[in-house]
Amino acid sequence: MQKNDLVANAGVTDVKGDRNLSPKEQPDKDVYLHVVEKRADGIVVRGAKCHQTGSLSAHEIIVLPTRALRKGEEEFAVAFAVPSDTAGVIHVVGRSSLDTREQDGCDCGNRRYSKYAPTVIFDNVFVPWNRVFLCGEVEFSADLVAYFSAFHRQSHGGCKAGKIDCMVGAALTMMAYNGTEKVGHHKEKVIDMIHRAETLYGCSLAASYEGKPMPSGTYFIDPVLANASKIHEGKEMAEATRLMIDIAGGFVADLPSDRDFDHPEVGPLLKKYLKGSNQAPVENRIKMFRLIEKMAMESADTISDIHGGGSPAAHRLTIFRESDTRSKVEAAKRLAGIED
Amino acid sequence: MQKNDLVANAGVTDVKGDRNLSPKEQPDKDVYLHVVEKRADGIVVRGAKCHQTGSLSAHEIIVLPTRALRKGEEEFAVAFAVPSDTAGVIHVVGRSSLDTREQDGCDCGNRRYSKYAPTVIFDNVFVPWNRVFLCGEVEFSADLVAYFSAFHRQSHGGCKAGKIDCMVGAALTMMAYNGTEKVGHHKEKVIDMIHRAETLYGCSLAASYEGKPMPSGTYFIDPVLANASKIHEGKEMAEATRLMIDIAGGFVADLPSDRDFDHPEVGPLLKKYLKGSNQAPVENRIKMFRLIEKMAMESADTISDIHGGGSPAAHRLTIFRESDTRSKVEAAKRLAGIED
Amino acid sequence: MQKNDLVANAGVTDVKGDRNLSPKEQPDKDVYLHVVEKRADGIVVRGAKCHQTGSLSAHEIIVLPTRALRKGEEEFAVAFAVPSDTAGVIHVVGRSSLDTREQDGCDCGNRRYSKYAPTVIFDNVFVPWNRVFLCGEVEFSADLVAYFSAFHRQSHGGCKAGKIDCMVGAALTMMAYNGTEKVGHHKEKVIDMIHRAETLYGCSLAASYEGKPMPSGTYFIDPVLANASKIHEGKEMAEATRLMIDIAGGFVADLPSDRDFDHPEVGPLLKKYLKGSNQAPVENRIKMFRLIEKMAMESADTISDIHGGGSPAAHRLTIFRESDTRSKVEAAKRLAGIED
Amino acid sequence: MQKNDLVANAGVTDVKGDRNLSPKEQPDKDVYLHVVEKRADGIVVRGAKCHQTGSLSAHEIIVLPTRALRKGEEEFAVAFAVPSDTAGVIHVVGRSSLDTREQDGCDCGNRRYSKYAPTVIFDNVFVPWNRVFLCGEVEFSADLVAYFSAFHRQSHGGCKAGKIDCMVGAALTMMAYNGTEKVGHHKEKVIDMIHRAETLYGCSLAASYEGKPMPSGTYFIDPVLANASKIHEGKEMAEATRLMIDIAGGFVADLPSDRDFDHPEVGPLLKKYLKGSNQAPVENRIKMFRLIEKMAMESADTISDIHGGGSPAAHRLTIFRESDTRSKVEAAKRLAGIED
Repeated sequence: MQKNDLVANAGVTDVKGDRNLSPKEQPDKDVYLHVVEKRADGIVVRGAKCHQTGSLSAHEIIVLPTRALRKGEEEFAVAFAVPSDTAGVIHVVGRSSLDTREQDGCDCGNRRYSKYAPTVIFDNVFVPWNRVFLCGEVEFSADLVAYFSAFHRQSHGGCKAGKIDCMVGAALTMMAYNGTEKVGHHKEKVIDMIHRAETLYGCSLAASYEGKPMPSGTYFIDPVLANASKIHEGKEMAEATRLMIDIAGGFVADLPSDRDFDHPEVGPLLKKYLKGSNQAPVENRIKMFRLIEKMAMESADTISDIHGGGSPAAHRLTIFRESDTRSKVEAAKRLAGIED
Repeated sequence: MQKNDLVANAGVTDVKGDRNLSPKEQPDKDVYLHVVEKRADGIVVRGAKCHQTGSLSAHEIIVLPTRALRKGEEEFAVAFAVPSDTAGVIHVVGRSSLDTREQDGCDCGNRRYSKYAPTVIFDNVFVPWNRVFLCGEVEFSADLVAYFSAFHRQSHGGCKAGKIDCMVGAALTMMAYNGTEKVGHHKEKVIDMIHRAETLYGCSLAASYEGKPMPSGTYFIDPVLANASKIHEGKEMAEATRLMIDIAGGFVADLPSDRDFDHPEVGPLLKKYLKGSNQAPVENRIKMFRLIEKMAMESADTISDIHGGGSPAAHRLTIFRESDTRSKVEAAKRLAGIED
Repeated sequence: MQKNDLVANAGVTDVKGDRNLSPKEQPDKDVYLHVVEKRADGIVVRGAKCHQTGSLSAHEIIVLPTRALRKGEEEFAVAFAVPSDTAGVIHVVGRSSLDTREQDGCDCGNRRYSKYAPTVIFDNVFVPWNRVFLCGEVEFSADLVAYFSAFHRQSHGGCKAGKIDCMVGAALTMMAYNGTEKVGHHKEKVIDMIHRAETLYGCSLAASYEGKPMPSGTYFIDPVLANASKIHEGKEMAEATRLMIDIAGGFVADLPSDRDFDHPEVGPLLKKYLKGSNQAPVENRIKMFRLIEKMAMESADTISDIHGGGSPAAHRLTIFRESDTRSKVEAAKRLAGIED
Repeated sequence: MQKNDLVANAGVTDVKGDRNLSPKEQPDKDVYLHVVEKRADGIVVRGAKCHQTGSLSAHEIIVLPTRALRKGEEEFAVAFAVPSDTAGVIHVVGRSSLDTREQDGCDCGNRRYSKYAPTVIFDNVFVPWNRVFLCGEVEFSADLVAYFSAFHRQSHGGCKAGKIDCMVGAALTMMAYNGTEKVGHHKEKVIDMIHRAETLYGCSLAASYEGKPMPSGTYFIDPVLANASKIHEGKEMAEATRLMIDIAGGFVADLPSDRDFDHPEVGPLLKKYLKGSNQAPVENRIKMFRLIEKMAMESADTISDIHGGGSPAAHRLTIFRESDTRSKVEAAKRLAGIED
């Protein structure tokens, strides 16, 4: 990131209240972010957008509707941008499974990067008109959601393929540290992991290559292939993780703390017993177990495999809606000799 | 195909005898096609290539080695082209599960296309030197096999995605004929089928887009993505087929014969009882069951999902061999804070 | 079977017409077998029961309703027994994928057993009152279906586990014939096959052991465990079959005919080239390929994995309906510290 | 547990050092617990047993060998019992993903139970002869491991089926809280979860019912069925967890802390926005999200799905070794008409 780059966060997911009810039917309408006042100089909005990865690190938050809307739901059809420290914008960072490790500065697995995902509350936030992009035009909300989520799902394919690559690297390193480099079933599990990475990556890449120009001149990725990648992510990241744990061994569950490794009496004993093959210092093996624990058990990261870019059911519906089923029916009828 | 197109068949797979033994160690060396005589005007070869889809419809058969070869195995390092009706070339068409239906002209499912796969015996076949491409240069045999199989696996991705498209079309048509168009779990199964087609297609397409130019100027597809597609094919075609059968219903197993439907007494009763929803004539429903039976139960076709382009174990080894594992290990070590 | 044993066939599955409509709503009510006349001495029924495995080998056909019925649907609530050659009972044997092999007596895979599944039409069949078990009592039809299908699904667990055992035996034999006995991935695939057999068997066996006595004194198996077994069957038989084909090799698709093996010129060549390892005569390898083809590609058998005992969706609904979900909710609330 | 019950912990898993080397070949032989001194009154042992769930809550630790041993490895063939606070026994509790939540007493998911798994170091521990069960008899070590692990794997089937039951209960409760009780795909996912629980349970139960008496009079469970259950556990617990997360929603990743819910300004806003359907107080929804986070993301628990009772590869080898493959081969040959 260059010094003057602008980083924006997309605020899409509303907290949604009772999923059985439409936005208007909710006992408390604020569970879908909406316009509560229109003024001469701008609008006032209220609501909350959850799972806002990196919202505090972004300069701007760009808010979009979370779903298709109908006539009568104009107040929810709102899109705008505000600086992330605007008055009334409250970021509540949620807990994730390994959050205290980072605060504590001890037993962290990933020495380079981190992640957090606040619930961002918009408590009567004022937005001037020149930063309002949509205000009541319900007919555009479905498309906005579809465009955003298609790109989100496509980009996940590259992102999570890269995560599996790191998991493959961790697994291979641990095999070297454990002395299981030549164990056949470990190698087969690594192949299963690579296969998953390439599947996410291949479908996501094909979605980009098959992009078509829109009337505006920008390109829109192929939504069927993008969603095909995301469906695999939602299911197969858990499997890739499971395979990495299988290869690494049980210390992913219960590795002693760095504080114990540093203890004057117990530390040397632990280092003696945690030593794997002679190829590597015990410290490296310990670090690699921590990274594997982080990649496997960090909720802020693993849950997004499933729910990032919309939930699995949404990906499935999209793949059906965007597929050309008519041509498939015609092909089958032609082979069967059926003339309608 | 234009009138003057030349169609060639690639003869790769040897019958292989005892898989535990190398070509030279076989009690009968002919189980790997080899040169039995070198003459001034050409060579004489003996052996057999099996699973030669469409060999009788091809003008030429291009023979390649079936595996990597080492010094001392020169006689097996042979590649050449001969017309498919050359003296000594014997095509023995094998049985497939529904072969008599086609010969009989009754109860065929696919009205347009067919498939057969002979064992082609080369019983002391003479090949003139100007049609011999490789003769003893063992160092090129591994590459020849790798190039051929990589393209074969990539092309399967498009081929079998198209087959799933036809199966999806058949499933959707049968849902209309059965009156189950709105049944939720049927729709979910169709989505599962489409997802599999798009996975094969996406990985295969990405393999092409990522093709790199070779020194000769031709492009070589990305072998990791091509094999990623093929691994899915080897496992998921069976699942797509299972889903189609699930949607269609039990008559895939035991639909009465057209001869029974034409019977003066039993025929009208059968047509009465085979009627599905009123949307479609019973004849169409019968035809669609036959197509589904053909796509599900035709051995000549379904077995190639698994063994076409080499067996699943070969695809897996290739994906491992061609992957850049070093960069993955480096990424993991960097995140873990390990400096070697 | 002893000489005087009575063999009965259960006629359950109606042809069903438009699945979107109830029995009474069908344009042609005969698509659900029903009573068309009540006489002093008995009833007359009309309809058709399909997929009647072995109906021609049974002495008696016992007809049951195919679904739960409501008030107003009394005519469909009918159960009775008739000899299978009763006047008006027409057995139309359907085609299966390898049926002509048996008629032809050549290239059959299974030398011991066979299977066929007719559509049985009841064309105004008279049933005397002393053989009528249910006639109009709609309140019992759901239970009759549930009892029958629960036992059917449980017994499948033993049946199909036995089939996988045969497939495992075939795979191991072919490994010996091919010389791949020590190939690691082949052994892993055999383990995957055994695991599937034991899963079907274990759940089915537990369903029996957990049987509870009914008021009548007979025992009723545990329906959740029986359906757990059947759900696996519906999905995993296809996978076990795929693994067997993977191990066996491509000749499952296109093995030459016995007539070619007996041909004076081509036969000796084929036998030469089909020879595997020296451990076994080529004839045995050919026979084993035929058995594998039969087990993999025989529609009369493989389709029943999916649709036998009701379709997969029915097994799933049953498992949900029969599970004690209340106690599971209570356990979760207790752990979470929620008091309602 | 009654007041005077004795609780024992089985110390089996050695830290193992370089897996490529046998116990004797290790540069530091202490990576396999062994006898370092034999005295008149007893033995002195050194080594470490890892992943010792609950060792600090047990009265006694019963140590067993971790693997089969051969002649020359007598020093490693040692079994004994010592009180868990014996001099030289050091319990180092490892870190698990949510451990600080419990220490902190805030944001804990499970209000009833917890788990921890120390590495237990035996730093020259003296064991009197009357508590030594095995000392040098290498011929019994394989059986000891096999018996212990078979029972361990069987008992996991009941344990983890119960955990899935709790996950099913949590998912159903969250569906009620979210207003998605009638959503078809959520119900299907619950069925998928129940199916997995019943599979573990059914195979495990069958393993018990099929138990055979040993010469000693105790019963030994069926090892094939026990391992069939455990193989499912190693793969399917991750899938059941994934389904629960899918149903629950994204707050499994980033639910705000109880401290934020108690905050005077932010707390009421959070409670307003975290409210789901009107059926339940927001506090209950929050508690249920915490329990789901605990069941999904607690490493001490989830890793044991994979590595508890030996790793998946061990379960697979056992299932192959203990299966009667000969009878399967005979069955296949009989059907194929092969007479050896």
